[in-house]
Amino acid sequence: MAARKRASATTATPTETKPNPPLTQETTTQTDPPISPPKKGLIFKLCLFFSISYFYLLFQRYKIEQDLKRSILINAALSVAGFFLTQRMIPVASRYVLKRNLFGFDINKKGTPQGTVKVPESLGIVVGIVFLVLAILFQYFNFTADSNWLVEYNAALASICFMILLGFVDDVLDVPWRVKLLLPSIAALPLLMAYAGHTTIIIPKPLVSFVGLEVLDLGCVYKLYMGLLAVFCTNSINIHAGLNGLEVGQTVVIASAILIHNIMQIGASSDPEYKQAHAFSIYLVQPLLATSLALLSYNWYPSSVFVGDTYTYFAGMTMAVVGILGHYSETLLIFFLPQVLNFLLSLPQLSGYVKCPRHRLPRFNPETGLLTGTHDGTLVNFYLRIVGPKSEKSLCLHLLFVQALGCCFCFMLRYFLAGWYK
Amino acid sequence: MAARKRASATTATPTETKPNPPLTQETTTQTDPPISPPKKGLIFKLCLFFSISYFYLLFQRYKIEQDLKRSILINAALSVAGFFLTQRMIPVASRYVLKRNLFGFDINKKGTPQGTVKVPESLGIVVGIVFLVLAILFQYFNFTADSNWLVEYNAALASICFMILLGFVDDVLDVPWRVKLLLPSIAALPLLMAYAGHTTIIIPKPLVSFVGLEVLDLGCVYKLYMGLLAVFCTNSINIHAGLNGLEVGQTVVIASAILIHNIMQIGASSDPEYKQAHAFSIYLVQPLLATSLALLSYNWYPSSVFVGDTYTYFAGMTMAVVGILGHYSETLLIFFLPQVLNFLLSLPQLSGYVKCPRHRLPRFNPETGLLTGTHDGTLVNFYLRIVGPKSEKSLCLHLLFVQALGCCFCFMLRYFLAGWYK
Repeated sequence: MAARKRASATTATPTETKPNPPLTQETTTQTDPPISPPKKGLIFKLCLFFSISYFYLLFQRYKIEQDLKRSILINAALSVAGFFLTQRMIPVASRYVLKRNLFGFDINKKGTPQGTVKVPESLGIVVGIVFLVLAILFQYFNFTADSNWLVEYNAALASICFMILLGFVDDVLDVPWRVKLLLPSIAALPLLMAYAGHTTIIIPKPLVSFVGLEVLDLGCVYKLYMGLLAVFCTNSINIHAGLNGLEVGQTVVIASAILIHNIMQIGASSDPEYKQAHAFSIYLVQPLLATSLALLSYNWYPSSVFVGDTYTYFAGMTMAVVGILGHYSETLLIFFLPQVLNFLLSLPQLSGYVKCPRHRLPRFNPETGLLTGTHDGTLVNFYLRIVGPKSEKSLCLHLLFVQALGCCFCFMLRYFLAGWYK
Repeated sequence: MAARKRASATTATPTETKPNPPLTQETTTQTDPPISPPKKGLIFKLCLFFSISYFYLLFQRYKIEQDLKRSILINAALSVAGFFLTQRMIPVASRYVLKRNLFGFDINKKGTPQGTVKVPESLGIVVGIVFLVLAILFQYFNFTADSNWLVEYNAALASICFMILLGFVDDVLDVPWRVKLLLPSIAALPLLMAYAGHTTIIIPKPLVSFVGLEVLDLGCVYKLYMGLLAVFCTNSINIHAGLNGLEVGQTVVIASAILIHNIMQIGASSDPEYKQAHAFSIYLVQPLLATSLALLSYNWYPSSVFVGDTYTYFAGMTMAVVGILGHYSETLLIFFLPQVLNFLLSLPQLSGYVKCPRHRLPRFNPETGLLTGTHDGTLVNFYLRIVGPKSEKSLCLHLLFVQALGCCFCFMLRYFLAGWYK
């Protein structure tokens, strides 16, 4: 409460001399129509499909200790509560962000009536805050005497929270991209400090005779690699975007794959520390998946809210955190295959070698309602150039399917390489 | 990067049908005049006065181990760098927040030309982010093998970061006060989880015969008290406000007192754990003090920037964190005496028993330039009713002097009660 009359965003005008009649909060709220209801059907189908395979693995396929199972289930219950809370909060937060003029117009619908609707922006902030609340509350339910657990957990929370803060600041203030690039690397530091795992890589067995070593300790170089991984994850989700539901959709697919990977690793191992590392990952990814699904129900085509950099940074950092502290960063990178490809395609433009426009979106034809690939170097455009014009919804589904295929490929690779690689 | 054309705050109008000619970024920047330069003289005098006594205690008065002294000095050097970085970033950030219509008008200057100037709001975000970066980087320089240190440090970072995030969200979106009250208690949870200290209180010696115990273990009640302390600190700095420089000024005074208290405790003790707890507190308070001083140089009368709830929440939470994890919460509460008084005076209005207006500021007379106390229950008004009308600058100085007197009273109390109380 400072000595200032706060300027309402809606009443403020660039010219100070001619004051507008003040709009009260009520009239502002009335002029902003409520957002469309969530797409419950889509979410229900997604949840059903995923839950069956996930809980089959958890309860039937593997013998997992009661204690661990109990913690996972408490976390799952909290996550379900988080899903409903997020779904409830998004329309409320939408009114607040619209009041502050945080909105955008959907470029992929330009020329149609939908292209003139103000879509509230940065709704990732709701997901981020609910996630943090869940993650903090969960600490009470995980009675691990191991203080190392708390070090890593709090370092993870600090990194994720800092990333959400920077994402939201970016959404509100439009930070220059050089600063953007710098900040995730700083936000990742608490994480690297808390990383107590190995800094070694295992030389694939066929190469041992050439290298002369079975295990190579990379020391600081390994920590640098992890820092770069965090920077890569946050930015790669942010640049593989531009279609309704793509940012959240890719997160949902990767998070689901991570959860299944974790359960499989817990089930297949007998090392308590290894299990704990994967359980740690579950405790953070379940809330991420649940809150993301709630956001997806509003962000799916046609989007009634936009997610903002807040969401992409948050989701990327959370997955980087679990990959690093769960000690499976190589697997994570294979789950991120489409993002790696998109990054490589983007490199000439991002590095400034080729001219980089403000948006690198496909061309939308309002008459046919189809998107055509441009020559900008993104996976979205590349895919469109291969398969020909597509509607936004169908293109997003295709790309998510590609993402899911990538994850399946990773599972297969792990299955076939087991024994050969490690 | 989402599929949206971001709405520029300056071009957006409530009526969609009549589009304004778009203002480019350049013209917007030109219409916002640069903020006044920082008041370097004031800061220099403050720093000189404080540094002499602080470094005298650190180097001369007490024998402190080289290792500890080295860590404190590295932290101090980082803090000085943080001071200059913050001072450099504030004008840059001011342009960004003005572009987003995050500004206010100074109510205490209403009726004068200064009252019509757009003052950029929420500059606490710069202080918060620089603080986090310093606190994260410092981890590299504190080579304590004790993993408990990292648990507490990361829990502190998580709590402070969450509080900055919520403060900034509040500044941007104007969150309802019921939500505001709830969130600091959740942000404080990582802190309480990491608190590994005692949950006992020592019964003052003269009362031991009545109570029948020398030490009383409060268990959960003690943790509840600490949680409430965090809620109190964040909100009490936020409501003891309304004058240029008061929010930052009170933080500077309390932070200085905390630092001196820490050095005295380290110097007087021989228990390594006790020293470590107070060193921990120094590592977080030095950056707080340095970055706050940089903000004060712009926020001092006449303010060229406002600090926002971001700053008050951040400063309050940081001090609560160090009080709790440094195990000197009772002393902290005495440093907060004016805030306690302000809270008690505010209670009838905050609880809704007496009508509570949006602002509870003194009445400003544009002809005399003086402030007169109203009947609203705040310390600012109460003080004005006692001493009569005052100018804003002189009133702020008086109140900060009262704050400093409170801190001196605390030092005296500790000195005289030593041996009697504990």
